[in-house]
Amino acid sequence: MIQSNVETFIGCESSFEEASVVLYGAPFDSTTSFRPGARFGPSAMRHESFGLETYSPYQDRDLMDIRVFDSGDLELCFGSSEMALSDIEKRAEEILKAEKIPVLLGGEHLVTLAAVRAVFNKYPDLHIIHFDAHADLRDDYLGARLSHACVLRRCHDLLGDNRIHQFCIRSGERAEFQFAAKHTDFHPFTFDGLKETVRELKEKKVPVYFTIDLDCLDPSAFPGTGTPEAGGVTFLELLEAIQTVSQTNVVGADVNELAPMLDASGVSTAAACKVLRELLLAITK
Amino acid sequence: MIQSNVETFIGCESSFEEASVVLYGAPFDSTTSFRPGARFGPSAMRHESFGLETYSPYQDRDLMDIRVFDSGDLELCFGSSEMALSDIEKRAEEILKAEKIPVLLGGEHLVTLAAVRAVFNKYPDLHIIHFDAHADLRDDYLGARLSHACVLRRCHDLLGDNRIHQFCIRSGERAEFQFAAKHTDFHPFTFDGLKETVRELKEKKVPVYFTIDLDCLDPSAFPGTGTPEAGGVTFLELLEAIQTVSQTNVVGADVNELAPMLDASGVSTAAACKVLRELLLAITK
Amino acid sequence: MIQSNVETFIGCESSFEEASVVLYGAPFDSTTSFRPGARFGPSAMRHESFGLETYSPYQDRDLMDIRVFDSGDLELCFGSSEMALSDIEKRAEEILKAEKIPVLLGGEHLVTLAAVRAVFNKYPDLHIIHFDAHADLRDDYLGARLSHACVLRRCHDLLGDNRIHQFCIRSGERAEFQFAAKHTDFHPFTFDGLKETVRELKEKKVPVYFTIDLDCLDPSAFPGTGTPEAGGVTFLELLEAIQTVSQTNVVGADVNELAPMLDASGVSTAAACKVLRELLLAITK
Amino acid sequence: MIQSNVETFIGCESSFEEASVVLYGAPFDSTTSFRPGARFGPSAMRHESFGLETYSPYQDRDLMDIRVFDSGDLELCFGSSEMALSDIEKRAEEILKAEKIPVLLGGEHLVTLAAVRAVFNKYPDLHIIHFDAHADLRDDYLGARLSHACVLRRCHDLLGDNRIHQFCIRSGERAEFQFAAKHTDFHPFTFDGLKETVRELKEKKVPVYFTIDLDCLDPSAFPGTGTPEAGGVTFLELLEAIQTVSQTNVVGADVNELAPMLDASGVSTAAACKVLRELLLAITK
Amino acid sequence: MIQSNVETFIGCESSFEEASVVLYGAPFDSTTSFRPGARFGPSAMRHESFGLETYSPYQDRDLMDIRVFDSGDLELCFGSSEMALSDIEKRAEEILKAEKIPVLLGGEHLVTLAAVRAVFNKYPDLHIIHFDAHADLRDDYLGARLSHACVLRRCHDLLGDNRIHQFCIRSGERAEFQFAAKHTDFHPFTFDGLKETVRELKEKKVPVYFTIDLDCLDPSAFPGTGTPEAGGVTFLELLEAIQTVSQTNVVGADVNELAPMLDASGVSTAAACKVLRELLLAITK
Amino acid sequence: MIQSNVETFIGCESSFEEASVVLYGAPFDSTTSFRPGARFGPSAMRHESFGLETYSPYQDRDLMDIRVFDSGDLELCFGSSEMALSDIEKRAEEILKAEKIPVLLGGEHLVTLAAVRAVFNKYPDLHIIHFDAHADLRDDYLGARLSHACVLRRCHDLLGDNRIHQFCIRSGERAEFQFAAKHTDFHPFTFDGLKETVRELKEKKVPVYFTIDLDCLDPSAFPGTGTPEAGGVTFLELLEAIQTVSQTNVVGADVNELAPMLDASGVSTAAACKVLRELLLAITK
Repeated sequence: MIQSNVETFIGCESSFEEASVVLYGAPFDSTTSFRPGARFGPSAMRHESFGLETYSPYQDRDLMDIRVFDSGDLELCFGSSEMALSDIEKRAEEILKAEKIPVLLGGEHLVTLAAVRAVFNKYPDLHIIHFDAHADLRDDYLGARLSHACVLRRCHDLLGDNRIHQFCIRSGERAEFQFAAKHTDFHPFTFDGLKETVRELKEKKVPVYFTIDLDCLDPSAFPGTGTPEAGGVTFLELLEAIQTVSQTNVVGADVNELAPMLDASGVSTAAACKVLRELLLAITK
Repeated sequence: MIQSNVETFIGCESSFEEASVVLYGAPFDSTTSFRPGARFGPSAMRHESFGLETYSPYQDRDLMDIRVFDSGDLELCFGSSEMALSDIEKRAEEILKAEKIPVLLGGEHLVTLAAVRAVFNKYPDLHIIHFDAHADLRDDYLGARLSHACVLRRCHDLLGDNRIHQFCIRSGERAEFQFAAKHTDFHPFTFDGLKETVRELKEKKVPVYFTIDLDCLDPSAFPGTGTPEAGGVTFLELLEAIQTVSQTNVVGADVNELAPMLDASGVSTAAACKVLRELLLAITK
Repeated sequence: MIQSNVETFIGCESSFEEASVVLYGAPFDSTTSFRPGARFGPSAMRHESFGLETYSPYQDRDLMDIRVFDSGDLELCFGSSEMALSDIEKRAEEILKAEKIPVLLGGEHLVTLAAVRAVFNKYPDLHIIHFDAHADLRDDYLGARLSHACVLRRCHDLLGDNRIHQFCIRSGERAEFQFAAKHTDFHPFTFDGLKETVRELKEKKVPVYFTIDLDCLDPSAFPGTGTPEAGGVTFLELLEAIQTVSQTNVVGADVNELAPMLDASGVSTAAACKVLRELLLAITK
Repeated sequence: MIQSNVETFIGCESSFEEASVVLYGAPFDSTTSFRPGARFGPSAMRHESFGLETYSPYQDRDLMDIRVFDSGDLELCFGSSEMALSDIEKRAEEILKAEKIPVLLGGEHLVTLAAVRAVFNKYPDLHIIHFDAHADLRDDYLGARLSHACVLRRCHDLLGDNRIHQFCIRSGERAEFQFAAKHTDFHPFTFDGLKETVRELKEKKVPVYFTIDLDCLDPSAFPGTGTPEAGGVTFLELLEAIQTVSQTNVVGADVNELAPMLDASGVSTAAACKVLRELLLAITK
Repeated sequence: MIQSNVETFIGCESSFEEASVVLYGAPFDSTTSFRPGARFGPSAMRHESFGLETYSPYQDRDLMDIRVFDSGDLELCFGSSEMALSDIEKRAEEILKAEKIPVLLGGEHLVTLAAVRAVFNKYPDLHIIHFDAHADLRDDYLGARLSHACVLRRCHDLLGDNRIHQFCIRSGERAEFQFAAKHTDFHPFTFDGLKETVRELKEKKVPVYFTIDLDCLDPSAFPGTGTPEAGGVTFLELLEAIQTVSQTNVVGADVNELAPMLDASGVSTAAACKVLRELLLAITK
Repeated sequence: MIQSNVETFIGCESSFEEASVVLYGAPFDSTTSFRPGARFGPSAMRHESFGLETYSPYQDRDLMDIRVFDSGDLELCFGSSEMALSDIEKRAEEILKAEKIPVLLGGEHLVTLAAVRAVFNKYPDLHIIHFDAHADLRDDYLGARLSHACVLRRCHDLLGDNRIHQFCIRSGERAEFQFAAKHTDFHPFTFDGLKETVRELKEKKVPVYFTIDLDCLDPSAFPGTGTPEAGGVTFLELLEAIQTVSQTNVVGADVNELAPMLDASGVSTAAACKVLRELLLAITK
């Protein structure tokens, strides 16, 4: 019998019921201020993942050994940020209600806010670990408070001080760096301090939302993103950091800001796929 | 004395006071549902225009002979369509108040709505001549009523029946074609009927807003656009049609939907520049 | 309940049982001698089809009105042409056995041979209508008899003289043109003679396999193909020709040789999608 | 015995002695004012020509039937236009001295001046037939009199009035159009008048230098050029015009202004190769 | 009142009078021997700079705190290197006369010669610090002595031995390395020795011209340049080196050899912008 | 006398007789399962090599000092892997018979098998040193045993256990890593252990075939390859490793998997050229 054409991220072919992790894509980039295209990130990752092996020699684990369901991309409205966020939040809620870990594929970084709203609703003691080139702490951007440039600030509105742990930030307005100094656990440029942060979060046994803006990577490793920012971390540093974070109680995660059309070589999409594979293998340990 | 770096579309170096036509750019594409990038259209046109001559052998006229002021691009909010439209409308109003013709460089087609609002406010008997591959007559698109796919429908909300004259449309939902059959002066596929329409509008002496979605051109001539639609008009057909429309009383105009990054050859931007040159020369006759 | 991510060509969401037409993709280009990449054709068409409307104003028909099942892409071996052809043939047989029309998405043109084998097995009085820039009538290419450059010759091995009707051919060795003069119904450069051919085939009531090498289109309309050949037909000419051919008893068809990576503008993929939509609507009339 | 790697344009493998036509490449674009890259034209044509058949169904002739020697590219100085021109002229002289027809592959259009100098030296009654989008009749360009924008003006300095026959010109300063009206046989936009011009030149039995700026083609057919100019001729119109010109006594020719990097699809290079094949077959009839 | 469209590098909006640093662009690449396109470097930097923050977390300084005037690009003749150099030199002289630091945006590296001529005229005890992948010490290149490949040799003609300090050079003819060993302060491959050089120059209190060929960066960080040379320095190493050099008395500087079209991802242009920001902030300390 | 257009890799202009090393290109990629294009690798390297210097400052040696003959590319059948391998093997045999070192330019990695067959035939005690991102140890790939993914497994069929020394492998199925643990001298991720391996091979005085899959490089340094795999070695690490390996008795070598069209910046091709230069200079020491 000829089957329908189900398309998933490689090795993520579990049923929803059996899955412990559920992927969901948010192809949204309406507030991107510089170069759009992150909307194509999740489908590109799914599509190009067949160039990747399911086995990770770094962790000696295989996607075939774990149970991930890929629920595909949401169909989001490009006219209104709030409508899009609301749809993303609903999907995250459904996944959480079924006691599975939601892993969001962006899209621009604003989509993280929707996931955090849902996760925070379930886990009021939530902390966020944030890898990014940009602080994303503006209060508004050209008048918009729902903007990729404000997403961690909106998260701070929810969680309050010292619950957001930011790493490898190397770009922002002076005001954002000043805000960070007062209100977040801020680690510019590198992953220095990550192990300490993780140790404390493990001790506190708090739930963690883990958001990876792929532009934390140096543009040499990841050119396909809207706002490339020279001077980032290497791929191997990111891999190690992901394994470190995965020692905490990760209850939700996302990988965002791949804009595949900006890197015709396909290297960025391939890197994003590998990050996702390692993330999935690490958080299911 | 060393001067500041003023950048204008080629040959559009009049002062605002002396100008009869004023260019203004709306680098906005937040509601683009398929492939974004039209936000870069106006700056690309300005920038690449220095590859164009100011003289048109088609009309035997030269941009140096007319007076156009280029006011540059507006800085628009990517978070909210209504805020962006409001800023565009204000600029159009300023230009109209100074008794000059506003010529808008998009951006996605939604920006036309802002210009039409301003022009309609001044000229309540306004008609619209619309060149496009797409009908743009949806009532909403995934819930958004302010969408590039709805822009002519929103114009129809303002102007009512038989005041919108659509040409070379070759794409849309069945419902849009049915709406057009009842409510607009609809000419699918080609410019057939344009001369008759123009004759009538001249006789009625009504003011005309002229909106050119560059994707009316065949993708072979204009690949650099978000939603290329095979089977369009040729560049020379468009040139002739522009001269025909310019016999009416054009009180506002726009050229939109160039997404320059989608055509790395630069051919689309060059074609857009040439369309703008011919449009400026034609409407100032 | 969260669903799996089924991906189909737009509007082809029928079940297999209810469908009258079944799409199947053959992502194969191993024998491509110049520029490969046609392997990515079928997935690109499926993926980019969401930029297309389901409604055709040319035929006033809508994909939502007909019943097409998209069975996705076969997983083919890149090491052996014969193994790949065998897998494609099996899929075509399954579809034919279920009394549905198989419509193949290539891949390089060699894949047509597999479909023709299956269709010819069911319909021994089969004729082929062939649109192409290239004659594809070599007996071998650098020693390989299973090559994109030989595919119609291999079909001739099966069907014999005067059963292959070739249109708009504009490239080949002298020997191929000489072969064509003797053995096929040959119409170089244009669709001249197509109406007469179709009239005869209708009178004879013979089954027809319809193979469209998209490089019959002029490269201006369709640059994204391995061996672009200037001087081809226009998109509108092709559309009309498809409607003409569809008056015959089309029992199998294919659309091939889109190499999407060769046209970063996306115009070629969009054109291929539109050709497929029009083909599906025409052959189900 | 293992041979050296001789690389020629396809089918141009005659020895120098036996050849009646000699190709020579001038990879020069130093005076290009807008987008450079024509320097890569000749090597790209040579390299990509293996995607072309040697047989022309348009003329029913084959490159294997004629004798063309490909002398490769000159190594030219990018620092000085005059030094480069001098080297090109020397090569043309050598070819002419051996009583062969020199066919130059540009490079920017300025290289034509070197060839014309050599040919004019041998044939003082020389006429030029010029296909181009641009008049190239400026007296200087930003102070430079040796510029691609001045090349026909420099030829006019040599040949004088009414010996230059220009076709399909659609761009230039007003002053160039005025100069043309007085001093050249000028046919804007199309090939209208070509047959009459050719008839006269045949009657006069004068030698003809034939220069084809490939940007005479519409950018849809030939996007890969420094200054694409919408509204050009089609590929088939150019093919017919080449055959028409070849009825005169063509004693030298060139094909120039392919900038292959500007058209990643390869369509422009393929078209240039086909133009060259047809030109070689036509002038050796 | 609607303003003219002044375009500057981000945050460089001082008036000429108030400025301590003046940017000037030299869009010239006529002598580039391999892949041209550096002519588009300065306008790309200006244009893409709006994707950059004005604040540097590396130096905790902001472009809004300093006073830079951007005088735009010169209009240079592509026909003659000497004419172009002369125009650049004049602009540098004007800036120097006004007691401001000229910072040149290339263009190919030859443009540095013009700036050095002007600066050397004012400061006869000038030293040059040179970051580059290539030695640029040829005496001529294919006969041209004014060539990008000769620029430091021409500077040596002016300044003489031991006044040119070269770092991270990793490419050249053997003869250039031999020349360097005798005549310049030469540091191949890395920035090793930079601190010592800077200490000496500080002690001597000599004026320094600082020329950065961006291809000193590894091509992974900076692919968009005419002659990428693997094995270069990292972005962070360059940043640190710039801060080191800025401890000397920098009286003129340039950033050159960005060829933006060669890196469609935009990463190279973004990196160049960031280098310029850091340079401006460092030399104004 | 005008010469034919001989095209070689830069500085490889020796005659066959005098040469100690012979280059031969295998433009084959038929079994590439993900993104094809490695067929264009050897011609791109030859063509772009003129952007490289012949002199290596790393080794203080110059290609002009050694004797390399470039025999160009083989014309290979794309229909059959075995036919292609057979033709490559024949060429390798001819070179070996003349007592020269064959250096193969791929193409996909499968071509290595042909060279190894020929070299192993001459040197039955052959060892292989293998640099790659991928283990290439599958027994078959989708049924094909002659596949790029199986090439080292096929070599193992010939040479047996502990004769294949693999470095920097970071991708494969779990089964391949398990096979390697038992049957090859396996060094994942880095060049750790290379010096020890080389010391042993020197002591044993065994002949060594050295195969470099360029995707061992990190994609940041080498994006232009079919299956980029993040986390690779740097260019300088590879350079050092090449010099280390060259201390053994290298009797054959290859450089493969450059797919130049996948990296439009040209950086990958330039890096491949530099690797080849360093390899040639190192193995002829």
